[in-house]
Formats: sequence, C-alpha cells, structure tokens
Amino acid sequence: MTLAQALFAPRAVALIGASGDAEKNSARPLRFLRKHGYAGRIVPVNATRAEVLGERAWPSLADAPGDIDHAFIMTPGDSVERAIEECGARGVPVATIFSDGFADSGAGGMARQEKLVARARQLGVRVLGPNSMGVIDVPGRLALTVNAVLEADSLPAGTTGMISQSGTMLGTVLSRGAARGLGFSRLVSVGNESDLGVAELLELLAEDPGTKVILLFLETVRDGAALAAAARKAHAAGKPVAVYKLGRSRLGAALARSHTGAMAGEDAALDAYFRDCGTVRVDQLETLVEIAQLLAGRAPPDLARIPRVAVVTTTGGGAASVVDRLGMHGIETFSPDSKSPIVDLTMKATPAQYTGALDDLLASPECDGVLAVVGSSAQFHPQLAVEPIMQSRRSAKPLAAFFTPHAEASLALLAREEIAAFRTPESCADALAAYFSWRSPREVAKGSASWPRELPKRGRLDEAQSLGLFASLGITVVKHEVAGAPAYAHAIGYPVAVKALSADILHKTEAGAVRLNVSDRTAFDREVGAMLRRVSAKSILVQKMESGLAEAIVGYRHDPLVGPVVMIGAGGTLAEIYRDFALALAPVSEEEAVSLIGKVKGFAMLRGYRNLPRGDLLAVAKAVAALSRLALIPGQPVAEAEINPLIVKSDGAVAVDALIVMKE
Amino acid sequence: MTLAQALFAPRAVALIGASGDAEKNSARPLRFLRKHGYAGRIVPVNATRAEVLGERAWPSLADAPGDIDHAFIMTPGDSVERAIEECGARGVPVATIFSDGFADSGAGGMARQEKLVARARQLGVRVLGPNSMGVIDVPGRLALTVNAVLEADSLPAGTTGMISQSGTMLGTVLSRGAARGLGFSRLVSVGNESDLGVAELLELLAEDPGTKVILLFLETVRDGAALAAAARKAHAAGKPVAVYKLGRSRLGAALARSHTGAMAGEDAALDAYFRDCGTVRVDQLETLVEIAQLLAGRAPPDLARIPRVAVVTTTGGGAASVVDRLGMHGIETFSPDSKSPIVDLTMKATPAQYTGALDDLLASPECDGVLAVVGSSAQFHPQLAVEPIMQSRRSAKPLAAFFTPHAEASLALLAREEIAAFRTPESCADALAAYFSWRSPREVAKGSASWPRELPKRGRLDEAQSLGLFASLGITVVKHEVAGAPAYAHAIGYPVAVKALSADILHKTEAGAVRLNVSDRTAFDREVGAMLRRVSAKSILVQKMESGLAEAIVGYRHDPLVGPVVMIGAGGTLAEIYRDFALALAPVSEEEAVSLIGKVKGFAMLRGYRNLPRGDLLAVAKAVAALSRLALIPGQPVAEAEINPLIVKSDGAVAVDALIVMKE
Repeated sequence: MTLAQALFAPRAVALIGASGDAEKNSARPLRFLRKHGYAGRIVPVNATRAEVLGERAWPSLADAPGDIDHAFIMTPGDSVERAIEECGARGVPVATIFSDGFADSGAGGMARQEKLVARARQLGVRVLGPNSMGVIDVPGRLALTVNAVLEADSLPAGTTGMISQSGTMLGTVLSRGAARGLGFSRLVSVGNESDLGVAELLELLAEDPGTKVILLFLETVRDGAALAAAARKAHAAGKPVAVYKLGRSRLGAALARSHTGAMAGEDAALDAYFRDCGTVRVDQLETLVEIAQLLAGRAPPDLARIPRVAVVTTTGGGAASVVDRLGMHGIETFSPDSKSPIVDLTMKATPAQYTGALDDLLASPECDGVLAVVGSSAQFHPQLAVEPIMQSRRSAKPLAAFFTPHAEASLALLAREEIAAFRTPESCADALAAYFSWRSPREVAKGSASWPRELPKRGRLDEAQSLGLFASLGITVVKHEVAGAPAYAHAIGYPVAVKALSADILHKTEAGAVRLNVSDRTAFDREVGAMLRRVSAKSILVQKMESGLAEAIVGYRHDPLVGPVVMIGAGGTLAEIYRDFALALAPVSEEEAVSLIGKVKGFAMLRGYRNLPRGDLLAVAKAVAALSRLALIPGQPVAEAEINPLIVKSDGAVAVDALIVMKE
Repeated sequence: MTLAQALFAPRAVALIGASGDAEKNSARPLRFLRKHGYAGRIVPVNATRAEVLGERAWPSLADAPGDIDHAFIMTPGDSVERAIEECGARGVPVATIFSDGFADSGAGGMARQEKLVARARQLGVRVLGPNSMGVIDVPGRLALTVNAVLEADSLPAGTTGMISQSGTMLGTVLSRGAARGLGFSRLVSVGNESDLGVAELLELLAEDPGTKVILLFLETVRDGAALAAAARKAHAAGKPVAVYKLGRSRLGAALARSHTGAMAGEDAALDAYFRDCGTVRVDQLETLVEIAQLLAGRAPPDLARIPRVAVVTTTGGGAASVVDRLGMHGIETFSPDSKSPIVDLTMKATPAQYTGALDDLLASPECDGVLAVVGSSAQFHPQLAVEPIMQSRRSAKPLAAFFTPHAEASLALLAREEIAAFRTPESCADALAAYFSWRSPREVAKGSASWPRELPKRGRLDEAQSLGLFASLGITVVKHEVAGAPAYAHAIGYPVAVKALSADILHKTEAGAVRLNVSDRTAFDREVGAMLRRVSAKSILVQKMESGLAEAIVGYRHDPLVGPVVMIGAGGTLAEIYRDFALALAPVSEEEAVSLIGKVKGFAMLRGYRNLPRGDLLAVAKAVAALSRLALIPGQPVAEAEINPLIVKSDGAVAVDALIVMKE
C-alpha cells in the first residue's frame, strides 16, 4: 500500500468522532462518502454510540475489525493524541486530522503539534493536518472531507488536481468549476502541514496518472526548497502547475499571519520563485479555475519573441474587451488581414469555415495562440460558433474561447472537450498572458564558491572585508586601501572617498562617516581628523573616486520562505521610490542576469534612450551573476549582501559600496 | 410626446424591413416585442409581403395607418434615406437605424451619414444610430431591438439603466445580470451616434424616475463637453454613473479605431475626465455589472481619510482573497478586535447575531463600509448568512457581499434586496475601491484670463513670448532678457543661460541652440557667436541660471476628446521613463493642484524622504493652477503649453523653459 493509495484510494476508512447528528460537521464525511458512492469499507468510531447514521459504530479504533488504510480524526481536545496512538497500534498508515487547536492557535498549540507529529513518526503514521478539511478523489468517489461543497449531488470528474492551504477555497474552486462542467481529479486541504505538506502532495499528484494539471491555493510557502523540487518533478512529468498565492499586499500578509500563524513572505521574491520553479502564477481566483485547460498537456512556450494571438470573432465589441487587456500585458495580435488587428468572421461564415479559420491560424507559424470570442450565439445557438470550436484540431499552441453572454451550457461543452473557455475578458487575457510568460524551471547555475578563510563567519563584515569578498567572487570593485593610525598613509590617487572603517556604523552617510571627493592630502588629513571625532573607528577606508553614467543596486538576500534571491535595481532615490527592481532565485548565470536587467525600467536610460550614452549593462550582468554566487557557498552563511551603488560606465561597472551581513 | 416617450415608451412602432423569415435578424424585433409583452401597436413595413409572422404588413410607411411614435429601420442600402423621408412625411419623431454602411464603413459612409442626419434634422426626425442594435425598456416591456439577448424568456426588471457603444456588450451585461437576478430599466445601443449620442441619452436616463444608476460601456467619447454636462446633471439628480471604457492599451485603441472609426483617446486624460465629471470608472467588465447596487442611492463618499472597510466572515481563507486585493488598492480594514484585521464570526453565531454585527459596524463612525464574506453556506444554507445580510439595516455606507462558492440563487436573493453582491474577490475589491475613489463632479474653477494683445494667435510662440504669457498668468518665470544684434547687450547677472530665440527650432538642446552656465561676458560673446553660426535666430534669450532641489514638468493640452487638461509630473529622464505624472481637467484651483501633486510618486523626494530637504510644492501647485488658466482664455486657442523644467526650490518654483503651441 503506497502513501498515495492510503491517502486517495483507501480500501477502508475510519471516521474517528463520527457524529450521529446529521446536522453536525462531524457527520459529513460519512454522509458524503455514501452520497458520492465510496466503494470501500466505512468504519465509524464513536465513544458513546453503537450506530451512526445507520452504520455500525465502534467505541474505539482498537475495537474496529479489519485493516484500516486511512483514519479521519474529528474528535476535540487531547483525544486526537489518543487517536494517533490507536492508529499506530492498528498499523493505520495515514491519519487526516480535521480537529484544530494546534499550530493554528498560537505557541502552545504549535508545541502540541510538534509533539504529536514526533509521536506519529515513531508510530509510522503519516499525518495530514491538523486543521485539514480532508481529501477528495472525484473519479475514485472518495469524499473523505467535511467540505460542504460535497453537499452537491454530483461533481464532474476530470483531470485537474488541487492542493489548498484554505479548505474553504478548495470548496470554492470545486464548486465554481462544477457549475460549468470543469472536472477535478484529486484535491487535498493541507491544513497546518505538520507532516504531509504541499511539496510532498504535489509530488503525489504529479505521479497520479489521472491528474494532468495541478492547482495550488497558497497563503504561505512552508518549505521552499521542497516545493521547488516538487515543482520540478511535476514539470518533468509533464504536469503544469498553476499557483494563486495570497499575501501580495501588506494587509493580506497581516491577515494570513493572524489566521495561519505563517508568514506571507515578500511578494516579489515569491514571484521570482514561482517563475523560476516552472510554475504559472495567476493573480485572479477565476483565472486559477479557468487556466487548467489552457495548460493541460502543454509545455512552457519559452518564446523568444513578443507573443502574437490571433483573435477570431464575429463581435468586435466583445473581442475588444479581451484585446484591450491583452495589449496591457504587452501581447500582440496576429491577423492575416493587416487592416484590422483581429480576424473578423462575418455572421455568414459556415461552421466548417469557422473551424477552418481556427485550424489555419493554429497551423500558422506567425501566430502563437488562438482566441475565439463568441457573442450572443454562445447562449442560444451553440451550433454557430461553439461547436465549430469543438471541432478544431488540437495543437501544442493554446486555443482559448471567451463567451460574451452568460453561457454556462456552452462553457460546459468546451470543458468536456478540454478546451479552455473563459467567463470574463480579464480572466481570459490574464490567463493567456500567464501562459506566455510561463518558463521551464530554471537550471540551477553550476559551479561552487568558497568562504575566504580569513573572513569572520558571523555578524556584519566591515566594508574592506565585504569589498574583498566581492572581488573574490569576480566583481570589479573600486580601488581601495585601508589606512591606519597614526599616519593614515595610502597610495590611492586623489580625489578620493574617505570612509570610517567599522562594521558597527549602520548608516555611514547620516553618521558623518563618509566624505566624497576629497581633493588632496591636506583635505584628507582634515577630513579624517574631523571624522574620527564624530565616529569611532580603528582605520580609514580610502577609495578612488569613481564616476559613470548611472548607478545600480545589486542585492543578495536569503529569503526566509524561498531561500537565496538576487536583486538588481536602478540606483538613486527616484528608482527606490518607484520600486524599480527585478528579482530571481540565486544563483543566476550571466545570461539570466541579462534577462533580469531587461525587466528594470530605469535602465532604459542606458540603452540609448533619447541619444543618451549607452551603459555597459553586460558588466552589470556579470556583477549580478557574481554576487548571486554567494548562494553557492556551502551552508549559505550570508543573510544579506548589497552593492549600492554599482557605478555603471560606458565600459565596465564598479562596486563602490559594499555590505555583507551574515545569518548568525 | 417627449423624446423619452417616443424612444422608450412609444404607443406604436414601425418595423421597416421586418422580415417574414423567422431566422433572420430583421425578424427579431417583431418576435421580441411580442415575446416580452409590448402593449403598443406593431406596424411591420415590408415592400413585398402583406403579412409578416402573422402580423398585417404594409408596403411602405406611407401606407401604414395611425400615428407612429418610433420607427426601427432595418433595410439595406439607400432605402434608409427613403425611410427617413417617409418618417418625416408621417411625423414620426424618432427613427432607430439598425442598418450599417455609414460612419462604420470609412470616409464614404461618413459623408453619407452626415447627409442623412442633416436631412433628418430638416424633417424633424431624431435619429438613433445608424448601426444601433436598438432600445430596450424592461419594466415597460419594450424590446425594440435585434439583440439576441432578448431570446431569453424573461428578463428581470430593475432600476439600472445602460448606454452602450457596443450592441454586443449591452446584451452581455443584460444576460449576465439576468442570470443572477440583477434587473435593468432602460438600455440603449447608440451605434454611430450620428444624432442622439451618449450625452443626450444619459440626460434622458437621469430624468427617468425608473432608473437609479446608469452604466456606460464606451469605446470612445464623441462629445466630451456634452457628456461632462450630462454626467453633472445625473449627479445632481442623484443618479450615479459607472463607466467601462475600452482603448486603455495601444492595441485596444487600434482595434477601436479599426472598428468604429473613432479615437480611443489618451487613457490618462480620460481617467481624469471621468473622475472630474463625478463618474465611477471601473476596470473589469464584471465590476460594471456588479457595481450598480453599490452605487445606487448613494453619493460620492469624498472621504478625507484612508477608507476603512469592516470585513465580517466565518471563513478566513475566503475573506483573505478580497482583503489582499483591498490592500493592493490602499484600503484598510476595520475590526473592533485589534488582534485580527477582520471580524471573525464563529460558525455558532445566530442569524440575529450576524445581522446585529453588520448593523453595529455600519453604525460605527470608525468604519466606512462593510463587507460580508460568506463561505459554502451561501450555496446550500442561505439562512445562515445570506438571509442575515438581507435583514441588515440600510445605510448611506456601502454594504457588499462576496460569496466564495457558486451561489447564483443567493446572489439573486441579495439582488432583490438591492444589496451589492459579487461573484469574484477581485471584482468585489475593485468595486469597493472604485466606490471609495468616487468624487463629486469638480467645481469648474472660476475667473477669467485673456490673451495679451501683443501676442500672435497662431503657430508656435517663441520662448520670450511664452515666458511673458506664463508670467501674465501668475507663474514665476526666470529673470530673462532678449538681447539683439549687433551688441547682444543685456543686464542679467552671470552665470547665465543663453538660448537662440526662434519659434522654428523644435529641439533646441539637440540643435545646439542652448548653452547653460555661461560664466562671463567673454564666454557669452564666444557662445553667442558660435550659436548663431549653428542656427538661425534674430535675437538671443538670456536667462539667469537657476538651480533648486528638483525639477518638475507642468503641461497643458487641449485633448481632442475631453478638452483642456493640465499635467504635473516629476522632472528628468527617469520620471519620464516611469510615466510619473498626474492629470486633471483644466482649469484647477490651487487646492486641487495640491491634491494632483499628491499623486506624483517622485515628489516623495521633496516631502522629507530620508531626510532630504523639502521642496516648495505649494509653489508648484500655484504654477499648475496658473498654467491651467489657459483654459479660461476665450476660445481656448492654446493647443499645448509646457514648462519643462519648473525648478523646485525650498522656497518657490521657477519656470526656466517655456513652450506654447496654438491650435491654428
């Protein structure tokens, strides 16, 4: 019996705490399992009743007969611990815990949860939850859940799997999909992820032959490395993964923390993470529901050109609402007739002509995807346009449909044919844009880096140490020397920059510990004297004054959720105000750094904008790639590193300010 | 018989070109009028048949008996002109033209349309269209349209009116609303707007006692001043107006132009226009459908503080999806319990407690709106949360509901109670954000301005003339003098800026017609000599060199769609790349200019950011208000004016570069 079988296809389930009161949540799993036709054995466990909703019940798991593959625990308080003991004694391989009061309820609950899981490990019991709403296998007719969405008389079976950190939202997606014929395979509410987490479940769904595409609803990422590895496995198995992740705003992050005790994480880092893992991040809930068919069976397009979508329609106004938003995503349209951006079919086109037009466009090397926009006929006359779409040839290129009216029957027709159809113009355009920005998982850059023996491994490094480490990584750093008391002699040519050398001064400029453009020795002596009266430092860092065309900021950070990330941004106060930067998981190659730099708007100034001189962005890319190699140092001991600024010249780029903070 | 009666409540309608073939579009109006219970007389006109779908038909309008209030013309080619003649002869006050081939089909069609409308005016016939899909009055049972949405057996009557430049999208909104119980009053497809345009129809709907809120679906604005006036009338009548306007992206604008021949306009100017007219612009189609109930009966909140919404829920995950997006809009939440951003009701709350919680929050001065997020019970147990929402007290503050599952029956329950309910978390958050950014129509700033007698009224002004005009408006301009041949004498203290004075040099810096920081008379003579060898100019403009903390750009433009607008942006190349500017309809008061300046992100630098010195943004506001007074000059002869840069100091702001281009 594999873990997947025990979770999703148990031959017998025990319902621990099954209620005989049909109105109670704890009566639901029994009702739902029966209603949806579960074929295995159901074993209610109830301390006080010998019968539950007409089913024979046992006072404890120990008394129940036969092998149990999966226990569903609903009892309150410390009876959960007892139930886990009984699972261990009976050799039950998986227990799903619906009961709450663990990590979801503060520090005490967290300690209780850790103890529970440690004991379950000893006993050989895998745990889903606590605070999990359960497991559903639609084709397998397993409704082992308290989720009220199973009140529905039937749910369409399909090939879309889902893992959700919110039990409610799992029901939401299932309910909304069902209303328009979108079927699902296996769905899991993960609860607190004390043992079985999103990553391991993603691997299980990636291995499931009945699942073609996997949706994730996330509020946090609890094990970034494991989830990244699972996402890569899903990609290798040809199973696209779409992600909806909350906590994008500060308000949303605060709510996630207050409700789950988990951090939402910095959204820009998560965005880079999901992209670099080969997953497709969506911004709207409806897009999560609707994008499945657009991704299923397809690979990341990894297009080198601006994507071109052919929009086929008989309704200009309907097409316009999608096309306008496609344009906002930077997508272009393709039309064989250069007079209009769209392919206008007259109302007189026969169904065969309609299908032919779609097939021709899908076959055209000029076009990267096809969108059919259908007007009122989608509601009342599916034979005119909806059926011709169903007849079109399947292609590696995406085919999407947007119906302008309320047309659930037609949406269901396309769902049955596994053709992506969209309810709103925005979800449609956003899904196409998400598809086109989908990339294969990034190859992890090879190579190694080592920590120079002479440097400390904890605390803040001083700036000379930091510059030394950056130089050892291959970054061009400013010419500098450490000048010591009493003479503060140095051989750097004037003008120079003078800095007090101390890891303890956090804001050097504000503290008066930096003087720029010191022109000669007399000025140098005067400035050093004055500086050492203001701040305490043993030595002075003397740097050659550098100037260039513009400034950049290059950063490295060990993100608590997703691990090492590298950041590149335009320098200066304005760029900081505009938050003009781009992130990627570290390390990155120079080529990847070039594409990252392409996302920083302000660098347009260095690309020949309005005849301004061009900056050496390749040198910037080299610095980004070099700094990102901090991630290759064994143990990844660096918490944060920054070059601010990196002076960008027409030939080269020089780091003039360096910061390194260790994790410990 | 008023125009509104003839349009929406005609006692008799003529269907010119009504087909006897039930499959044809031109058979629809007769079918739809009957199906939806039109009580007036229907007069089919058909050149070849004496009977149409069982109704007596006449060969021409001249032959038809009785008074006709409204003619619906569906015939092709130049029979349209004939039909208009007949309308004139019979005294038919309004003709709706469905036929196309006018402004929708190029320059020839445009000429034909102009001729047709001129003739209709002579005849006293008002025209809706051509290319209009017709008029619907749901409560009045008038379905005078070819729009297929009327195939529906019935449509819910309500108090939401709609005017659409796309016939398809009118049907779309009606169909989607109907599916969830949202009712409509009067709806108009305007087509080419040859005579009756959006503005006049908006006035009619604003006067309609059966209409409480009005939706506009726009691809262009054909008469900006008239629409602004109509929007103000709607506001005065207490009828909120929501607008969805396409052409936000370049691609969308290109499509609009290819399909309607009309310009989409610059989106930032339109955004300012819709805001300043007191309308609510929405970004998603679904929001247009759903926002009606949030606005109906309410006035613009004109809040001075950051809006605070209380979010009441039993489902944390469901609330999180809305709250996260509210946070992205800069909205805050309010909760009496400071531990959580939301108001968590336990599952055990009784319906009365639920209603009580909503009522208390709506009554609290701390909170500006209430959102109820309902989980799976919205689908299966409306008595638990949906009915308590229905029982809540009505308030001037908005109450909104978001249901996480598919729950059309519950959406319809709230629709019947005129409580705003939303299908998606994004539409819900966007609608609340749109409501909170809703402002009363801007008072038009009073005062007058006049054109100095000595200045030319056409072409480009030279820079001395432009600076003079700016000074006459009250703008502080740089100290300057015009120095003429042969001595080029002047009395400005060095250093100075030297510019060749000519309205013909478009890009002065690139042409070598500007020299900054000229330090003394010797350098001045040398620079002037060199400059006049490079470019041709009769005189030299000498300016005092100014410096300050930062630069700003102030612009004025007569937008072809919305009229005069004033623009304020941060100066410099980076700000240009980031498109960091804000727009308003001109003229603006100094107070309004201050709030406009607040929208320019880069000015954060001048507000004490990171201890940088503060700039005199009040002086910037004075310059913005002064430049905007160009709109007060009779005839508004200025096409474009720009101060670039305006030097911002810690005390004051000075225009050092001036441009004025006249319309002619």
